[in-house]
Amino acid sequence: MTGLIEPVARLIESFSRLPGIGPKTAQRLTYHLLRAPDTEARTLAAALIAVRDDVVFCELCFDISTGPRCPICLDPGRDDSRLCVVEEPLDVLALERTRAFKGRYHVLHGAISPVDGIGPERLHIRELLERVAERSVSGDPYGEVVIATNPTLEGEATAMYLAERLREHVGQVSRIARGIPVGGDLEYADEVTLVRALQGRHELTDRSAP
Amino acid sequence: MTGLIEPVARLIESFSRLPGIGPKTAQRLTYHLLRAPDTEARTLAAALIAVRDDVVFCELCFDISTGPRCPICLDPGRDDSRLCVVEEPLDVLALERTRAFKGRYHVLHGAISPVDGIGPERLHIRELLERVAERSVSGDPYGEVVIATNPTLEGEATAMYLAERLREHVGQVSRIARGIPVGGDLEYADEVTLVRALQGRHELTDRSAP
Repeated sequence: MTGLIEPVARLIESFSRLPGIGPKTAQRLTYHLLRAPDTEARTLAAALIAVRDDVVFCELCFDISTGPRCPICLDPGRDDSRLCVVEEPLDVLALERTRAFKGRYHVLHGAISPVDGIGPERLHIRELLERVAERSVSGDPYGEVVIATNPTLEGEATAMYLAERLREHVGQVSRIARGIPVGGDLEYADEVTLVRALQGRHELTDRSAP
Repeated sequence: MTGLIEPVARLIESFSRLPGIGPKTAQRLTYHLLRAPDTEARTLAAALIAVRDDVVFCELCFDISTGPRCPICLDPGRDDSRLCVVEEPLDVLALERTRAFKGRYHVLHGAISPVDGIGPERLHIRELLERVAERSVSGDPYGEVVIATNPTLEGEATAMYLAERLREHVGQVSRIARGIPVGGDLEYADEVTLVRALQGRHELTDRSAP
């Protein structure tokens, strides 16, 4: 860029590589850090290094962790009969925030996507199948595996793939509901979502009333 | 946040402190860097450190620089009779991109804002007045000082303040035009901008035709 000194150009470029950060935002962030107190840039730099040095993936569920096992896998208070399968560590975070699921997790780190050349072998699917089979063989099978991959083409394909392979080892394989988001508007819902909402309809009982 | 391991929480927090980065974006950036190749986070960290270690402000114009004087102040090819006063280093960058100004710059690092407790003494206004007065005293006054502060309340106040103090030492003090942005729509322009556009109208000559 015209008139840009090298360290500034380099930081702008580094910021631009981040997802969702355009060149204008990268510029604004860089100039902000140039004028902010010295600690702000250095704290961010240290946090970046720490996240790469100190964070690993849990050897059991593949969620992020600071030790070989993540806090959820280590927590004796969780329900060991239920397993929830998600695509990303961020999905675990989102589900944990609801406090509605008390079981364990398994993070696939993606979804099956033939278009992008991502087959089952590129995900932590083998480990999931082994984990479930081991429990089944030891006479204590999972009561339920909830497949909470995204309701996208790839997420649905992954769910179908997993369901087939999990069924023989698990009491029940379930899929999170798809439908109109709470606070959403039928008028603006796409057709596929509406079809899913209709298909997933359930009897109104006292229990399900808001 | 529920279930967040410490290094991850710390990076999310560091990102959240940046202007325009909300907690959701900070989370997304953090998880992206967790999964991206190791170099991506480390390159960004190094660029952050370098920007603080290697970048200073030019002792003459206060633009960013890697040495005591910035490239523009050192460039013998610039027009020494014109000076353009801006609020921020980013404004220099924006003006340089146009290639329409060939003179020198002076960066104030802000604008006068009584509401925020920013008086002239908090900006590089003293240095600007000294710079202009020195040239005047040495018998080679600036032919023109263009005040290119933002067309905001603070920028206008700063422009008025500077114009008063610069006039005696300078051939001409000018202000960048305010009006309808190119490609903009009269219908959606605010009243103040429309008034400025009318006040700043000029005769259509062959020269000013597109």
